[in-house]
Amino acid sequence: MKGAVLHGARDVRFEERDAPRIVEPTDAVVRLSATCICGSDLWPYRWISATGEPTPMGHEYCGIVEQVGRAVASVRPGQFVIGSFFASDNTCPHCMAGYQTSCEHRQPVAGAQAPMLRVPLADGTLVATREVPPAELIPSMLAASDVLGTGWFAADAANVKPGKTVVVVGDGAVGLLAVLSARRMGAERIIAMSRHEPRQKLAREFGATDVVTERGDEGVARIKELTKGIGADSVLECVGTAGSMHQAIGAARPGGYVSYVGVPHGVKLDGQELFFTHVHLHGGPAPVRRYLPRLVELIERREIDPGRVFDLTLPLEKVAEGYRAMDERRAIKTLLRP
Amino acid sequence: MKGAVLHGARDVRFEERDAPRIVEPTDAVVRLSATCICGSDLWPYRWISATGEPTPMGHEYCGIVEQVGRAVASVRPGQFVIGSFFASDNTCPHCMAGYQTSCEHRQPVAGAQAPMLRVPLADGTLVATREVPPAELIPSMLAASDVLGTGWFAADAANVKPGKTVVVVGDGAVGLLAVLSARRMGAERIIAMSRHEPRQKLAREFGATDVVTERGDEGVARIKELTKGIGADSVLECVGTAGSMHQAIGAARPGGYVSYVGVPHGVKLDGQELFFTHVHLHGGPAPVRRYLPRLVELIERREIDPGRVFDLTLPLEKVAEGYRAMDERRAIKTLLRP
Repeated sequence: MKGAVLHGARDVRFEERDAPRIVEPTDAVVRLSATCICGSDLWPYRWISATGEPTPMGHEYCGIVEQVGRAVASVRPGQFVIGSFFASDNTCPHCMAGYQTSCEHRQPVAGAQAPMLRVPLADGTLVATREVPPAELIPSMLAASDVLGTGWFAADAANVKPGKTVVVVGDGAVGLLAVLSARRMGAERIIAMSRHEPRQKLAREFGATDVVTERGDEGVARIKELTKGIGADSVLECVGTAGSMHQAIGAARPGGYVSYVGVPHGVKLDGQELFFTHVHLHGGPAPVRRYLPRLVELIERREIDPGRVFDLTLPLEKVAEGYRAMDERRAIKTLLRP
Repeated sequence: MKGAVLHGARDVRFEERDAPRIVEPTDAVVRLSATCICGSDLWPYRWISATGEPTPMGHEYCGIVEQVGRAVASVRPGQFVIGSFFASDNTCPHCMAGYQTSCEHRQPVAGAQAPMLRVPLADGTLVATREVPPAELIPSMLAASDVLGTGWFAADAANVKPGKTVVVVGDGAVGLLAVLSARRMGAERIIAMSRHEPRQKLAREFGATDVVTERGDEGVARIKELTKGIGADSVLECVGTAGSMHQAIGAARPGGYVSYVGVPHGVKLDGQELFFTHVHLHGGPAPVRRYLPRLVELIERREIDPGRVFDLTLPLEKVAEGYRAMDERRAIKTLLRP
């Protein structure tokens, strides 16, 4: 089978890899209906050492179960399933507390930019739909695997509630779906920070009431202006840079909530500065598994359409072009069809 | 009048100062029944440049209203009142949200180690008791002014709930009252981190179920051991150093809550490290005013006895000895009688 392998900076190749097989009795092998490229894939894509080991890429997936190990009880071949980027047993104390991405037995799922994928801890990780969904729902099901679940966690972790004022920092797929999530949770005002016209448009369609194009201290000043000097109740940081984190914390009201869901790169927080902002801070790798059953249900009922973040669809063999398009910000998110 | 003035490192003098008077129509002047020395006073006491301006010290107070400005409506001369270290209007959006220490009009209260004190924004800041409390309640009323309110905030900000496992980092007066607060909020297990025998004893009397003497990574390992490898639901960081913060975050379970209530000194948080701990982080200057009415009520009913943290009582003129005793950890907290 052929899949995507990163060989060095901006060097993704579609090449022969071993086909996945059952290794542990708790594994499943899934034939993917669709896969995609994540904003977080761009970090290694841009920065990886060219001398690093070749790395199979991709961690977002949905598809039909092909085979299961003998210990797997909750999914069976033929079912359509969705999972997330960390496999989790969904029974340990951390899973029970809703933090499946801190599962005591978590394992990264890797190599999903391929036709077939091995998923460890299948019982805990995979959520099966009642029936195989029609083709038009596949992009949304795929979005649930990571970006929707992550945007949803951003809104939940920032305590978004009906009537509240919410700021979303970041107009990538996660930021856009954080807007959608905040809307579903009843936020009254949703301010998207974006300077890209097509993304602003999608943000508005997903429920943003305002768009702020300023960044950094100017962006913070604009948010203060829009909120009578108070700041936002909830700020959802969906980027992961020092600048975006600073902007997010600055935009929150004292006692407000800041969530952060992109892996931070180069972010250092000064304890004393943070102290005097009075913000609540919560984030981490989104425990998508916590939300998957609910998100799948919303998608099946066609109440949300998160698949709209895919503005480029390519056959899997064009994966390198998919990376380029996202790297150059020509595409928000690339869906790949095996 | 004579009060405490800091002149340089470890140089506190009891010397003549201007008697406070009404400056703004919203001011009150209070004749103090008792005042005290705060753990946070030790930062400038130890580290202030000897060439700095002489600084009147003290920010904890309770006593009898002597005089009020013409705009003051809620307290009157003769009433016994308690206030906190930031004056606040208690009407702005931040106060309404319960963050009076981020009040839009906040002003520090300073110079309370004296017989008389000017309190700005008296209507918003001062809470009057129904009657002048008997002498034996004065230490507890004084504790409510800062250390109790701060310990209470630590417990509240770390989401302490009935049945939960709580760790308190720091065995100063705030840490000890954080133990008392966690107990009042129904925590099942309260682990005090302390290596000072008299403080351990008081922690146990306030409700600690376990004492851990190890610190740093060893302390974290011990907490993990005591919690079946899971970590604590709530960790209350009551010190403000890089080491104590690191220890607090390490002791929390994924998805757990860490509060921090001591002004951080030299604390830098690495965004990526924090991200993967999955903790909730919340703190800041404790909005004591939010809790004062409730705390005063608990004290009046003799349901709590936070005044026990004062293990040294001196006449105000011995203030320098009070500082020395706390600096050398001979005393947990020094009460001063004007």
